[in-house]
Amino acid sequence: MKIGIAGLGLIGGSLALALRDRHEVTGYDNDERARGAAKADGIRIATHLDDLVPADVVLVATPLSAIVPTLEQLAAHSDGAVLLDTGSLKRAVADYAAGRAPAGARIVGGHPMAGTTSAGFSAADPGLFRGRAFLLVPTARSDDGAMAVAGTVAREVGAVVTVCSADVHDRAMARLVAGPLAAAAALAVAGAQAEPLLGAAGPGFRDSTRLADTPADLAAELLFGNGADAAAAIGSIIEGLTQLRDAVERGDRDYARSFLQAARSVRSELS
Amino acid sequence: MKIGIAGLGLIGGSLALALRDRHEVTGYDNDERARGAAKADGIRIATHLDDLVPADVVLVATPLSAIVPTLEQLAAHSDGAVLLDTGSLKRAVADYAAGRAPAGARIVGGHPMAGTTSAGFSAADPGLFRGRAFLLVPTARSDDGAMAVAGTVAREVGAVVTVCSADVHDRAMARLVAGPLAAAAALAVAGAQAEPLLGAAGPGFRDSTRLADTPADLAAELLFGNGADAAAAIGSIIEGLTQLRDAVERGDRDYARSFLQAARSVRSELS
Repeated sequence: MKIGIAGLGLIGGSLALALRDRHEVTGYDNDERARGAAKADGIRIATHLDDLVPADVVLVATPLSAIVPTLEQLAAHSDGAVLLDTGSLKRAVADYAAGRAPAGARIVGGHPMAGTTSAGFSAADPGLFRGRAFLLVPTARSDDGAMAVAGTVAREVGAVVTVCSADVHDRAMARLVAGPLAAAAALAVAGAQAEPLLGAAGPGFRDSTRLADTPADLAAELLFGNGADAAAAIGSIIEGLTQLRDAVERGDRDYARSFLQAARSVRSELS
Repeated sequence: MKIGIAGLGLIGGSLALALRDRHEVTGYDNDERARGAAKADGIRIATHLDDLVPADVVLVATPLSAIVPTLEQLAAHSDGAVLLDTGSLKRAVADYAAGRAPAGARIVGGHPMAGTTSAGFSAADPGLFRGRAFLLVPTARSDDGAMAVAGTVAREVGAVVTVCSADVHDRAMARLVAGPLAAAAALAVAGAQAEPLLGAAGPGFRDSTRLADTPADLAAELLFGNGADAAAAIGSIIEGLTQLRDAVERGDRDYARSFLQAARSVRSELS
């Protein structure tokens, strides 16, 4: 296929590296350094975003806030190309497709559940998506052929496809991404009170707080881009912690054990 | 040195494997299978706990609730052997040393900041302590020679020694261990509401909830063995999450960014 990639950061760069051997891949990034780094790594670079079409599919892997504007610009002359974004929230894309998108546009929402707290093309890795979920969200501008193309891209980077609605997606992500991010930040701030032993922290504390290293812009988008769901998810975590604290205060080991057992059974559902 | 090890689970087993090449190591465990597994791996096994002395040092790596009883039994005839425990809470050991311990006993509190959510000798690994902190807590029954022996053991397993009081230790551990454990459990339980997408969870959610796999007995000890500090630590996490949730609800990105920045600066203090 002829594949365009808009945005050559961690996700777009990793997609480019994973797909370039089997497809005709062209990338573009607003940032000159990102273009230079990708070019140095052998990725063909377009001079303008618009030059990514004509193509079979254009992957839109810009920062979250730029996704709809980028889709908009591409959809104006996409000429049958499937537009598949990779952002971590999907309602805005679904709303755009159902509303302002031109009649001929073919738009599929995508979200590869992979990433690190590193950013930029320098952190790109063709194996980033291997074995990970790649969520696909059909929009009002998705057709069967567009979904098939999106599925092919996801599978060819080694990911496992799951299809869901934008609402189900965004609510779930509040639980799986925004909540853990908030908890990591709260744990890190509370951990400061472990001084003078903070530096002695073991792997448990390090893993638990790793998401607090999420780049600030992405973290803000994950929390505020889906504010109502994120607030509800944080509320659920507060509720669980309050139950555990109350059990500790009243010496109720049975309750704490039941809670911990429930937590362990959720963990066992992660493949 | 002649080294006895009481308790051949993850920690005791790893200590035995790390020390046996350079020292005369003898292990003991109440559980016959643990003794058998260690013996099959070439560890010399004693028939009774009491047979671990005479020795230069006996490492007490039993479950937390058995540490003081084990110290008590060994101290009755320790004959100059340094008794160094490896439990994750230290006040009970310090209290025992300052109170009921016999006059001739030499007792040092120890806590290697290493571990996994696996348990038992089968998970033991001689490299478990490499580069990790090994906290040493002097007690009323510690002398300079005993501290030196404890330091030698810690350094020979590859760990980095930090000395602190039992109070400082236990308060810090509430922040670095009990709080993160409670948060992992609360996150996992809240994560169940991500269904039907729970199975799509990425590495962030998996790492954030890993501590929820802590064996139930150990988890209960970490929370209830130091209840007041653990409740206070959980309270601090609730407070941070409440601040973040309120910021999301009122759309206050500046506040959230400041909070996330504070969290990131704590992370940067972890070596």
